[in-house]
Amino acid sequence: MGITATYLFPTDINQEQKAEQFALGLTVGSWTDIAHLEREQLKHHKGELLSVEKGPVKDIVKIHYPSANVSPDIPAILTTVYGKFSFFQGYELIDLAFDDELLAQFPGPRFGVQGVRDFLGVHNRPLLMAIFKGVMGRDIDFFSNQLRDLLAGGVDLIKDDEILFDNPLTPFEKRITTAKAIIDEHYEKTGHKVLYAVNLSGRSHLLHEKAERAQELGANALLFNVHAYGLDAMQSLRENNNIALPIVAHSALSGVSAGQQDVGYSYDLLVGKLTRMAGGDFSLYPSPYGNVAIPKKEALAIHDKLNETNRFAQTFSVPSAGIHPGLVPQLYEDFGANLVVNAGGGIFGHPDGPIRGAQAFRAAIDAMVANVSLQEAALTSEPLKVAINQWGVLEVQR
Amino acid sequence: MGITATYLFPTDINQEQKAEQFALGLTVGSWTDIAHLEREQLKHHKGELLSVEKGPVKDIVKIHYPSANVSPDIPAILTTVYGKFSFFQGYELIDLAFDDELLAQFPGPRFGVQGVRDFLGVHNRPLLMAIFKGVMGRDIDFFSNQLRDLLAGGVDLIKDDEILFDNPLTPFEKRITTAKAIIDEHYEKTGHKVLYAVNLSGRSHLLHEKAERAQELGANALLFNVHAYGLDAMQSLRENNNIALPIVAHSALSGVSAGQQDVGYSYDLLVGKLTRMAGGDFSLYPSPYGNVAIPKKEALAIHDKLNETNRFAQTFSVPSAGIHPGLVPQLYEDFGANLVVNAGGGIFGHPDGPIRGAQAFRAAIDAMVANVSLQEAALTSEPLKVAINQWGVLEVQR
Repeated sequence: MGITATYLFPTDINQEQKAEQFALGLTVGSWTDIAHLEREQLKHHKGELLSVEKGPVKDIVKIHYPSANVSPDIPAILTTVYGKFSFFQGYELIDLAFDDELLAQFPGPRFGVQGVRDFLGVHNRPLLMAIFKGVMGRDIDFFSNQLRDLLAGGVDLIKDDEILFDNPLTPFEKRITTAKAIIDEHYEKTGHKVLYAVNLSGRSHLLHEKAERAQELGANALLFNVHAYGLDAMQSLRENNNIALPIVAHSALSGVSAGQQDVGYSYDLLVGKLTRMAGGDFSLYPSPYGNVAIPKKEALAIHDKLNETNRFAQTFSVPSAGIHPGLVPQLYEDFGANLVVNAGGGIFGHPDGPIRGAQAFRAAIDAMVANVSLQEAALTSEPLKVAINQWGVLEVQR
Repeated sequence: MGITATYLFPTDINQEQKAEQFALGLTVGSWTDIAHLEREQLKHHKGELLSVEKGPVKDIVKIHYPSANVSPDIPAILTTVYGKFSFFQGYELIDLAFDDELLAQFPGPRFGVQGVRDFLGVHNRPLLMAIFKGVMGRDIDFFSNQLRDLLAGGVDLIKDDEILFDNPLTPFEKRITTAKAIIDEHYEKTGHKVLYAVNLSGRSHLLHEKAERAQELGANALLFNVHAYGLDAMQSLRENNNIALPIVAHSALSGVSAGQQDVGYSYDLLVGKLTRMAGGDFSLYPSPYGNVAIPKKEALAIHDKLNETNRFAQTFSVPSAGIHPGLVPQLYEDFGANLVVNAGGGIFGHPDGPIRGAQAFRAAIDAMVANVSLQEAALTSEPLKVAINQWGVLEVQR
């Protein structure tokens, strides 16, 4: 019963002894020097080296930590399994496995893929998310106009830019009430529901109050810079029943601890598994295609962790940054249908404006589901044709 | 008015243009394409490239972000200045400078060096802190015995091990009340005050309640794994006037974002400047000497940031891990008198037990203040003599 941590350690001829030392040092401290009676007392707390798999550069080391050593929260778990290791060069934490009793203390997403699809009434295709762009320094009319355009173009979700914080021109509450009115109107006209994820930001101790107020004002989703606050802060928002809103977990700052070669966490642990456990309904992360990109293998590993079958609802996978309609076939090939296609510049940079920008994406998504090529779909979608002329089509690599 | 971020960027022949792009991309987005009227509107939000200093491997790049772009909190600031950069390879954030108006929104330590010295009544020497060891799996009597020994040995402060969480054998509240009784008794007998930093852990949304309860029960300091929760969580604890307790900020997990070569934050920014701004009364970090060590240059840079003259109280510098009495001369040489000498194994591993282990440290500290060599001091201190025989003396490098 407990936690199994999988690490990559720099290869060492005496890895077994070294890793055994770590397993003890990070739990009961010593073992050989202590008396039999004490050993009995301590054996429920003793860390155990499970395996060492030798490699040419790194060894894969698995260490088991008893549940008795931690409280059931992510800060205690990460401090235990990686608090000290973080100071060493080249020691990576690539996975954590938990026993069922421990897992049961984590919530997973409140809505997840299914809940979000049910709310939106969209079951058969990837979703389209747009990012407000250039709102900083502009007023609420600018925001409203962008929102109307995006709705007219057929997006399913819209999120704030993660660097838009509370500000006098477009205050948090005003964004919520303005968006609600426009989204409600859109629903009455078209029957289409849309989620708007407002950036929940500011001081830690005010987040719950602010999120509860957002819910009261009619917000229907939250954007959260989870790595600026810690995963546990998101988990507590997820668990607050006065805040029953889907949470869009943004990966800003995660690269500092997960994105660097040879050190830190793996992306699929931090932005995949732990983000899902802690209750993210969506996990945004850099796609393998854009100017802010992560290796494809890592992006796919995140996606797998968000979708694999386990006790938690699935988290919507949102590979982001640099997405244009010509990438949709590759996204669909790589990530499948449980996907959110997320675009900012790829919508607002469309030569014919954002309405057509969004329409081009919707045409591209529909083409994938209908098993039609983008080029063929462009014959009946002028916006898609223009987008393809603008950005091209990435030939699908299988 | 705003924030100046200093980065190391991988060297690039077109660094000016690249960095200028970043300065815009991370603020108003574009510049050249927008109309004059909008430019006027946006100029208070536009990021500005201040300077590029070319280097052979890295260029030093300074970018200014207007205050108007952020709310005055660390999550917003870090997300703005490093949220996206974190995904790139080799982009380091080495410093942040803030205007006075922004700085005024941060608290700094409630007590700081002076407040802690006043409480303890110790003004003329480095303090001695001990770490409880091997408490995991042991009961409250074990804890009490360690505490009595440490007090008898003359320590000024005692902290929980950072991996000791709430648990049935030594529960949080029981540790507080037990320690309080023993520390009060010690004070009545000796007139010496001692701080015990209990590990404030568990779920984020319960931290304030738990810390307030700790205060009610007579706790006199808190240990906090700040990097497991985020700096803003610590700041809000600092600002809660129902929790007027010194905070010992532990650097566990900080290595993942600050300790790695060529990436992430500098240690002096994260564990120095920001930890002080956010209200840490003590900042623990790996010393340059032990088995968990950081380069001396970085340790000294942290120490400088904790002590430099600015609007905030000074934070006590606690270079930790692998400290034994034979290192005290070098510690004193490197860090001066405003220092906490922090030891676990160096006290409990003393051949004659922890009382003498602590006494050896106190003798070493007193020797430094009296400008006496350790060898000379050992002539009149048997515990120090034994410690030196055990671990040796590091010859001071100036």
